[in-house]
Amino acid sequence: MPKILEETEKQLGTVPGTILYHGAKKTSKVKIQIIDYTGKTFVEKKVKDVKECFAFKKKDTVTWINITGIHDTYLVKQIGELFDIHDLVLEDIVNPNQRPKIEDYEAYLFVVLQMVYGTKKVETEQVSLIISDSFVISFQEKDGDVFDHVRERIRKAKGRIKRKKNDYLAYALMDAIVDHYFVVLEKIGDKVESMERKVVDEANSETLTQIRKIKRDLIFMRKSTWPLREVISFLLRGESKIFKKDTTPYLRDLYDHTIQVIDTVETLRDMASGLLDIYMTSVSNRMNEVMKVLTIIATIFIPLTFVAGIYGMNFTHMPELDTTWAYPVVWIIMVAIAITMLIYFKKKKWL
Amino acid sequence: MPKILEETEKQLGTVPGTILYHGAKKTSKVKIQIIDYTGKTFVEKKVKDVKECFAFKKKDTVTWINITGIHDTYLVKQIGELFDIHDLVLEDIVNPNQRPKIEDYEAYLFVVLQMVYGTKKVETEQVSLIISDSFVISFQEKDGDVFDHVRERIRKAKGRIKRKKNDYLAYALMDAIVDHYFVVLEKIGDKVESMERKVVDEANSETLTQIRKIKRDLIFMRKSTWPLREVISFLLRGESKIFKKDTTPYLRDLYDHTIQVIDTVETLRDMASGLLDIYMTSVSNRMNEVMKVLTIIATIFIPLTFVAGIYGMNFTHMPELDTTWAYPVVWIIMVAIAITMLIYFKKKKWL
Amino acid sequence: MPKILEETEKQLGTVPGTILYHGAKKTSKVKIQIIDYTGKTFVEKKVKDVKECFAFKKKDTVTWINITGIHDTYLVKQIGELFDIHDLVLEDIVNPNQRPKIEDYEAYLFVVLQMVYGTKKVETEQVSLIISDSFVISFQEKDGDVFDHVRERIRKAKGRIKRKKNDYLAYALMDAIVDHYFVVLEKIGDKVESMERKVVDEANSETLTQIRKIKRDLIFMRKSTWPLREVISFLLRGESKIFKKDTTPYLRDLYDHTIQVIDTVETLRDMASGLLDIYMTSVSNRMNEVMKVLTIIATIFIPLTFVAGIYGMNFTHMPELDTTWAYPVVWIIMVAIAITMLIYFKKKKWL
Amino acid sequence: MPKILEETEKQLGTVPGTILYHGAKKTSKVKIQIIDYTGKTFVEKKVKDVKECFAFKKKDTVTWINITGIHDTYLVKQIGELFDIHDLVLEDIVNPNQRPKIEDYEAYLFVVLQMVYGTKKVETEQVSLIISDSFVISFQEKDGDVFDHVRERIRKAKGRIKRKKNDYLAYALMDAIVDHYFVVLEKIGDKVESMERKVVDEANSETLTQIRKIKRDLIFMRKSTWPLREVISFLLRGESKIFKKDTTPYLRDLYDHTIQVIDTVETLRDMASGLLDIYMTSVSNRMNEVMKVLTIIATIFIPLTFVAGIYGMNFTHMPELDTTWAYPVVWIIMVAIAITMLIYFKKKKWL
Amino acid sequence: MPKILEETEKQLGTVPGTILYHGAKKTSKVKIQIIDYTGKTFVEKKVKDVKECFAFKKKDTVTWINITGIHDTYLVKQIGELFDIHDLVLEDIVNPNQRPKIEDYEAYLFVVLQMVYGTKKVETEQVSLIISDSFVISFQEKDGDVFDHVRERIRKAKGRIKRKKNDYLAYALMDAIVDHYFVVLEKIGDKVESMERKVVDEANSETLTQIRKIKRDLIFMRKSTWPLREVISFLLRGESKIFKKDTTPYLRDLYDHTIQVIDTVETLRDMASGLLDIYMTSVSNRMNEVMKVLTIIATIFIPLTFVAGIYGMNFTHMPELDTTWAYPVVWIIMVAIAITMLIYFKKKKWL
Repeated sequence: MPKILEETEKQLGTVPGTILYHGAKKTSKVKIQIIDYTGKTFVEKKVKDVKECFAFKKKDTVTWINITGIHDTYLVKQIGELFDIHDLVLEDIVNPNQRPKIEDYEAYLFVVLQMVYGTKKVETEQVSLIISDSFVISFQEKDGDVFDHVRERIRKAKGRIKRKKNDYLAYALMDAIVDHYFVVLEKIGDKVESMERKVVDEANSETLTQIRKIKRDLIFMRKSTWPLREVISFLLRGESKIFKKDTTPYLRDLYDHTIQVIDTVETLRDMASGLLDIYMTSVSNRMNEVMKVLTIIATIFIPLTFVAGIYGMNFTHMPELDTTWAYPVVWIIMVAIAITMLIYFKKKKWL
Repeated sequence: MPKILEETEKQLGTVPGTILYHGAKKTSKVKIQIIDYTGKTFVEKKVKDVKECFAFKKKDTVTWINITGIHDTYLVKQIGELFDIHDLVLEDIVNPNQRPKIEDYEAYLFVVLQMVYGTKKVETEQVSLIISDSFVISFQEKDGDVFDHVRERIRKAKGRIKRKKNDYLAYALMDAIVDHYFVVLEKIGDKVESMERKVVDEANSETLTQIRKIKRDLIFMRKSTWPLREVISFLLRGESKIFKKDTTPYLRDLYDHTIQVIDTVETLRDMASGLLDIYMTSVSNRMNEVMKVLTIIATIFIPLTFVAGIYGMNFTHMPELDTTWAYPVVWIIMVAIAITMLIYFKKKKWL
Repeated sequence: MPKILEETEKQLGTVPGTILYHGAKKTSKVKIQIIDYTGKTFVEKKVKDVKECFAFKKKDTVTWINITGIHDTYLVKQIGELFDIHDLVLEDIVNPNQRPKIEDYEAYLFVVLQMVYGTKKVETEQVSLIISDSFVISFQEKDGDVFDHVRERIRKAKGRIKRKKNDYLAYALMDAIVDHYFVVLEKIGDKVESMERKVVDEANSETLTQIRKIKRDLIFMRKSTWPLREVISFLLRGESKIFKKDTTPYLRDLYDHTIQVIDTVETLRDMASGLLDIYMTSVSNRMNEVMKVLTIIATIFIPLTFVAGIYGMNFTHMPELDTTWAYPVVWIIMVAIAITMLIYFKKKKWL
Repeated sequence: MPKILEETEKQLGTVPGTILYHGAKKTSKVKIQIIDYTGKTFVEKKVKDVKECFAFKKKDTVTWINITGIHDTYLVKQIGELFDIHDLVLEDIVNPNQRPKIEDYEAYLFVVLQMVYGTKKVETEQVSLIISDSFVISFQEKDGDVFDHVRERIRKAKGRIKRKKNDYLAYALMDAIVDHYFVVLEKIGDKVESMERKVVDEANSETLTQIRKIKRDLIFMRKSTWPLREVISFLLRGESKIFKKDTTPYLRDLYDHTIQVIDTVETLRDMASGLLDIYMTSVSNRMNEVMKVLTIIATIFIPLTFVAGIYGMNFTHMPELDTTWAYPVVWIIMVAIAITMLIYFKKKKWL
Repeated sequence: MPKILEETEKQLGTVPGTILYHGAKKTSKVKIQIIDYTGKTFVEKKVKDVKECFAFKKKDTVTWINITGIHDTYLVKQIGELFDIHDLVLEDIVNPNQRPKIEDYEAYLFVVLQMVYGTKKVETEQVSLIISDSFVISFQEKDGDVFDHVRERIRKAKGRIKRKKNDYLAYALMDAIVDHYFVVLEKIGDKVESMERKVVDEANSETLTQIRKIKRDLIFMRKSTWPLREVISFLLRGESKIFKKDTTPYLRDLYDHTIQVIDTVETLRDMASGLLDIYMTSVSNRMNEVMKVLTIIATIFIPLTFVAGIYGMNFTHMPELDTTWAYPVVWIIMVAIAITMLIYFKKKKWL
């Protein structure tokens, strides 16, 4: 079954808002990590019971609850109850392969993003964010280092992150995900570039398979980047009260990055489309060369063989056969034919 | 006659609003099923006379009248009179192969959807919904199980459906239809995937026919999904008073699913277009290989045959013929020619 | 000269608003038919003098003046004066091959439509409508039966047409024209379907010419249907006061039909584009097959002929020639070579 | 240097608003012609000194100053001063190959149009119009007859032009230019039509060059027609006060013509694109035919030659050689092989 | 690593707003040049310490600070502090390969542009502008002469630049960059034109590589010109207070130029796409010619060789062999076969 349809089958017929995990279990242990800070204070804590999160649900500090592993639907439901989250949101969180989107539930914003990774094959991991004035909850499918830079900056009070609020934290998380796209795009870009050189010289079915894979990866990338633009654009338009005005320049920066990602995906798609054209042309070129060799050899030797055939006939009365100079004359004729042909080919630029 | 035009011919020249069934009779018996419920009550009933429906036309309960079989135009007319439905609506109901659409008649909403099914070939069944504050009437062309999950949820009071109103019921029915698209898309997706592997190895006219079929199915899917988006979008924009504000999150969810269906159709179309390119390239590749074999054999043996032809000539004066070492020398020359050719082909990477 | 440009040459340099007929004379006699009715009354009359029309120019009855033949520019001018029509409108009426359009002159609406007909080749006839509160004037290029159904319905008071006003009559006329598109589309659809089967088996230059014709017909259809949508959409938006609110559902129905026509044209275009791809692939496939046959025969017999050539040489000292078993051994070698080749081809799946 | 870039090089680094003529000098003598009229009066005059124009700059008459030759930048500057025209406008007037555009300087409108002409190759001439309430100044690159019809109509008081104001005159001039497009389009249309027939039979590199030329001409046409639409649309929206309300129907007519020009360009582009496809298919078809002939001849005669080769061998012990019936039997075998082959080809439909 | 991704890798994980130079060091020495003028005064100065700039930060004069070399991040930071510039702006300045954009920070406008140059390969240099009411700061990656014309005009008080304000200066700088696009486009245009001629005659893999390069350069150009349009359009809409109303005609002129750049890029892309089609067709044409030669030679001589083979057979009983006229008759037959074939080829137009 193609990946694009992987999750859909199991959803059919279930009650909308049912919180059932449909993806593959990408991590065994569910981890809950809480980071709570103001400009001056800093608490980092790993908790086992989700109820411990509740203590941090207050307005005056920035609270980031990061949950790794979304297959534990019971836990997701508990969080839903604790933080008063709509059932449809919870359903979306536990269903990977959602389209990137943003939904405004007034009390909170629900953002679904797709993180891309992988070197050989592009894969995605769904990251969901619940952003309110008092907390940011992030859901990851599995452990990853994409948010490590953000954590580090909070811990070391590097940059302006510790002085800012929940909306800046949410921005920082989204920025980390968007920046990660470049890593994957760069790898695809390298592949396209190396294929461009390769395709002129070696056009075989293996090259064809590689082009096909690149094209699929880019279709994949495209599907997850275009809706991303709408998500950031929604925030940038200031339609949500959660994102404050002083975060706008950062969102604009994030929007620029997203546009750059989309631009790059489109450019790579253009180049990948060109690959197949060059491949086809390259195959045609080589066929042409093969044909030329065949034609040169055949058109030189077939007439010569015919001449030889003539004098191989066993007629009793063939006066030429008995003259002494006949044999060398035939040789001269043959060489003349061959040279004429070669001159013709030279003129036609086949040689 | 192509399916896309199947119904149109018979409509010509009829009075607009004429209720004449034009489709093929897909079910023999027309069935009328009434489900009437509130949070606490539940009535399920099969009726023969359409007038029995009238009793359920009241505001305080959720009433779902499901009619299977639309060829009984008399019955459709009766319903039209009972529930005060516009003639053009009735005409659309009994005319299958309508484009998905929504029409707001203030007292009720009229929605036409196309349900897709079929494994070998994609087929569609028209489902029409009349949605008002006090009832939902659904018209199906034939018996099907697409609404069974909804019925089950109402019967078992599973999920939130029994606590909700007519608008939620209408949403649930539309959701069931949209979800069904994924089943069909998945099958097409499987076919595309298997074709992608097949097309590299076996590019014959049968493969070509299969690609053509997939492309047609996707043209078909596309035609019924794009207008679907407009339908849901109309409801989501809150332009109808029948859909209450608390149903909006569910409509948004439905809209997301529709977008995902369209996305998938477009992705599959992209992939299907790629199939033909790969097919062409694959055919070219193989032709190239055939040509190489011919060229190698021909360019090696044609010159050799010429040499043999020379010494098959019957000239009286051919001094070479009589020397003892001439025959082995000719063999050596021939082997040398053959080896030279082979080295040339090796260099050209034809071997 | 291509049809799309047929009329344009003669217009050059004429004063804008000049009423000169530029088309071919499609009918010899100009006919003026008046149908005048209310819910209760009915008058049908053929007149010779256009001034007789004037009597019917009153608000309380529905008046339909149908003029067949637009080459009589004097008559058109007279009508222009009688009913106070702008010169540019009259110019457009007598110039066939206009783009479908609607123009609001407040006192009346001017609608240009293209009626399509023809089985072998798609042809168009321009139908112009002048729609006001008190009359509808229709101009046809030649006699046709497209409006016969409408006439019949008025005569027999069938459907709701007799109870309705001028705007409904105008709708009925436009509906008749749009419905006629389906007849032509169906024929093109049949051709495309039959070509799809044909193109796989018989790809010759005649098939190519047919594909080209279908493509041209569809370019043609497209040119006249897209602007049609804008025309109906203009009416549907309620921008004209002549079309009353109770006609809106009918216009919406008409709009749906127009969209369906456009959809079908686009689908057929998609399919027609696919035809050429399949044609190309089909030609490649067959070339491949031809090549294989040549290669098989050539690669089997060329080496064998070489072997026969060897022992046809006339060297005095060829020890093999004189041994008894040499001849059968050569045969065995030849058969071995042939079998080896055949196994090779079997493995390559060329046989 | 490609034409599309012809003028740009010399502009670089000049002060914006510098009035330097960059085009080729298309006419040697600059001509200034003044036509001044009201409904009753009419003055036509050729002047040498631009200052004479000033006398006609008054509101109550329609004044048309037509300047042929734009290389005399001093004259253009003088006009600029006399009529108080912005420097950037003057710069645009003397720079040919501008994109069609309209600019509203409140006191006057500045319109740049491209007139197309030429039979073998499409060429353009820039026509600039300065339109105010009291005068219309037109700048042409060289003498031409495109405005002759307009002049004639004014002189002979034909049509409504003499009764109308400056805005109608400006419309008439623009109409003359747009109408001229049809002449060129018609010629291209003829070429496309004749190529369509030619390409099936004669697909050689000369045909290819012709297709390429048609495509370039259409790219060219497209570049100058799309912006034209925006120009007319600007006037039609009534954004300028210079164009009065009673000119609107004429502008709408002009807009229709422009749309028709664009439609035709697009249709011809579609058809021209199709030409290359047909060309390719036609080449493939013929290659196929060539291959078939080769294959038929080769597969019939190569096996036969082999048989002949067998009995040309010089083995001492070949029992067949000495029997009387051997020779006719070999002939029978050969004919049998040939007939078998021919039946095979018949079955394959290669004959 | 492809250029389009060159800079992105190093940005990952850095704090947003971090001012780290990521590009290659294109110039060794950072230069700061100040030009300060009013209609009457003029000061030009090269400074080493950035603090000297501060003296010129006043409203009544036009101040242009041009900084060449952006790798000195300390200097950029200092300027940021002196002129109160947002950190994200400074980050964008030192990060080359940004997408052209404009950002309105109320006190100043931040514009990023890409200057293109290069003859063999298109390269870009990022130019950033900070435009306020009292100064314009421009950042270049390396020394260049693109702004020399502007400097010269200020020095010599040529044109209107000295009489105008900061907004006109900013316009002049942007105009200089946009005008430079034409130089590069012209070179690409020349290449495309020469390729068009070349591709018909010489279609080899080197031509293919050149087409590929042209296509990439145009993808590149396209990426930097489309956003440019939005930048100028933003200014033209008058959304910023810094650009005064009297600069609007100049911005409109600039906008026109930008559109013309985009138009030209698109036209060249169209033409470059056509190149590959012509290439393919050209290759096919030549293959066809090669095939014809092979077929003509083979189909003439293969049957003749067969005939010769027949009479080379060594049957004892071949009555023909002993008749005197047999040999000339065989010759006549052979010539007849050859002539028949040649007539056939003539008829098929292969000769």
